[in-house]
Amino acid sequence: MIYADNAATTRMSPTVLDAMLTCMKETWGNPSSLYDLGQRAAEVLEDARARIAACIGAQPREITFTSGGSEADNQAIRSAARIGAERGKRHILSTAFEHHAVLHTLEQLGKEGYEIELLPVGEKGTVTVQQVAQAIREDTALVTIMYANNEVGSVLPIPEIGALCRERKVLFHTDAVQAVGHLPVDVRAQKIDMLSLSAHKFHGPKGVGVLYTRQGLPLTSLIQGGAQERGKRAGTENVPGIVGMAAALEEACAHRAENAAKVSALRDKLIAGLGAIPHSALNGDPVDRLPGNVSFCFEGVEGESLLLLLDDKGICASSGSACTSGSLDPSHVLLALGRPHEVAHGSLRLSLSEENSEADVEAILKAVPETVACLRAMSPLWRDKCSGKQAFIL
Amino acid sequence: MIYADNAATTRMSPTVLDAMLTCMKETWGNPSSLYDLGQRAAEVLEDARARIAACIGAQPREITFTSGGSEADNQAIRSAARIGAERGKRHILSTAFEHHAVLHTLEQLGKEGYEIELLPVGEKGTVTVQQVAQAIREDTALVTIMYANNEVGSVLPIPEIGALCRERKVLFHTDAVQAVGHLPVDVRAQKIDMLSLSAHKFHGPKGVGVLYTRQGLPLTSLIQGGAQERGKRAGTENVPGIVGMAAALEEACAHRAENAAKVSALRDKLIAGLGAIPHSALNGDPVDRLPGNVSFCFEGVEGESLLLLLDDKGICASSGSACTSGSLDPSHVLLALGRPHEVAHGSLRLSLSEENSEADVEAILKAVPETVACLRAMSPLWRDKCSGKQAFIL
Repeated sequence: MIYADNAATTRMSPTVLDAMLTCMKETWGNPSSLYDLGQRAAEVLEDARARIAACIGAQPREITFTSGGSEADNQAIRSAARIGAERGKRHILSTAFEHHAVLHTLEQLGKEGYEIELLPVGEKGTVTVQQVAQAIREDTALVTIMYANNEVGSVLPIPEIGALCRERKVLFHTDAVQAVGHLPVDVRAQKIDMLSLSAHKFHGPKGVGVLYTRQGLPLTSLIQGGAQERGKRAGTENVPGIVGMAAALEEACAHRAENAAKVSALRDKLIAGLGAIPHSALNGDPVDRLPGNVSFCFEGVEGESLLLLLDDKGICASSGSACTSGSLDPSHVLLALGRPHEVAHGSLRLSLSEENSEADVEAILKAVPETVACLRAMSPLWRDKCSGKQAFIL
Repeated sequence: MIYADNAATTRMSPTVLDAMLTCMKETWGNPSSLYDLGQRAAEVLEDARARIAACIGAQPREITFTSGGSEADNQAIRSAARIGAERGKRHILSTAFEHHAVLHTLEQLGKEGYEIELLPVGEKGTVTVQQVAQAIREDTALVTIMYANNEVGSVLPIPEIGALCRERKVLFHTDAVQAVGHLPVDVRAQKIDMLSLSAHKFHGPKGVGVLYTRQGLPLTSLIQGGAQERGKRAGTENVPGIVGMAAALEEACAHRAENAAKVSALRDKLIAGLGAIPHSALNGDPVDRLPGNVSFCFEGVEGESLLLLLDDKGICASSGSACTSGSLDPSHVLLALGRPHEVAHGSLRLSLSEENSEADVEAILKAVPETVACLRAMSPLWRDKCSGKQAFIL
């Protein structure tokens, strides 16, 4: 099996498995309990908090543990919206190609009287700091812009947007679910006020994530109850998951540069090879790009068929976000990039990790062109178009 | 070490650890992915859903996975409140000794225009079906009453309340976090519309729970984003946690009757022994009681000191709920039972599981009376009271 869907989820590393197993067997107490077993669990929890904070340039008290990236996004945006509303600010600035955890929360806020403005992301799938600067208003409560796009891999100019927002005194949240562990994220240096991350995107466990919030920003609880997480996130802490997340993040950050070098070399080879397929087009920013992301549209190909045929050849890939793969609608991300509906349907995302090899790339470079050709040969529409020499220009 | 705080959390069973580890190593794909690795994860997820449903008398589609009991409580109550409001019903009936995940959510709803009525629970710590019947009104949107109390162990007349609510056409939610796996819970037979449970209370993993919702009841999402859980709970599913929860629940339900018999015999021995301590009083219903719960107040004793001294003797116990153990306030549960502040401060909760033994009980029955006597001997207030023959009557 060639796993090339690391943007959807990753295989847990042996180090992470060991850390979790040890925690499950030895420090399984409730960290709110006063006796030694509980206090050891609390120590393990706070140790994990400090290690995670250090990996992203934060202070431990700025880390709130959540059940994952979606919860962190929801809580960040709801908290910032409330802070804004208390000051009469109800304008929220974002982009058209955010993850649904951001977009759907914003839609809901739109129904509650907020004004949501989604910046266009252009053909390359990015926004410029100038776009953000022009759109910020006196009543802007929040700028929420993803660090890197999950489908097309564009890396956005987050440090510049952070500096701008700090200067204009506007809260800045970034959904960094695809970035943390893969790009050099530093909330202090990059002037990020709130950041969401998810452990299972960097070889950590599912069901656990972090909301970083700059000290002093009051959070709104999504889940009320016990006094865990300074009263901002109720529920017994998932200590083994959190410990696994800390182990995974430390491992990812320790090897980040070398992993990025390896993975981006594999990525570039794939991009070059798949770009040679006729009537193909790379999605996303060709330069400012996640190390592991390869995203293409192939004209005349139905993405789901492509995936199933690749699966038969042992290749795990996706058309876009796993979160929406049950849907028949084309990706909102590809539409935001201006791809026509029929082209957006023919998308393929390959997302690599340091576990991938040259051999994987070669196998993919053999399988994808064959499969695309095969699907096109079966498509009457495509054959007609080709024979009429009127293939779309992508 | 003698672990007697199973109401706070439980040790994970080896079966559960194995099930999770296998899942983490073999079916770690994203269940939304189309390729085989993802689809196998989806199968494992749906298999867990069906098994959990079967354990509580529900249908698989009535099970929504959450990050734990607190999230399930929040979502159940928020959903029922919205359903009620749409019909002009804004009265919510509960009890004074619910878990904070329920009480704090209700407090928030109180600020949002709902009328919250908390039934008194009396000295025994329970409510009668007559109390509920008298309090239900035309505009009652929801009755939310816990299955069993986490601090004092009372088991409430849930089947009777369920039947009443069904007859009166009022939604009924029960926080069954302390009950599931320990008592015979059957949502169909007991006419429960919504139920919350948490895996780590029955030897499952932390960070995962269930909201059961009777078919047809529309849920409000607390976490918006991807289309997971039929669009009602976004975020990549914590498949290993869910698989662990299913294994734990099946194991607990398969051995429920024998475990309950064993554990309640140990409990009764402890209750008899500790009840012989002068100026002690059992908290909670002496008859309708969780198999593992032993809760006492000892006059003239500071609960936290008692716990720390017991910890020195290797006994893990608590004064009440772990979720509030950092707080200096006396337990809202004990106050709801009518215990005076100074008496509520001297509480001890021992919560047993089938992993406890006769030897554990004997050790506890040696340690607690000694420690209580020692603390009382050091308390000037208590010595004065004793010498004046004016000890509180509990």
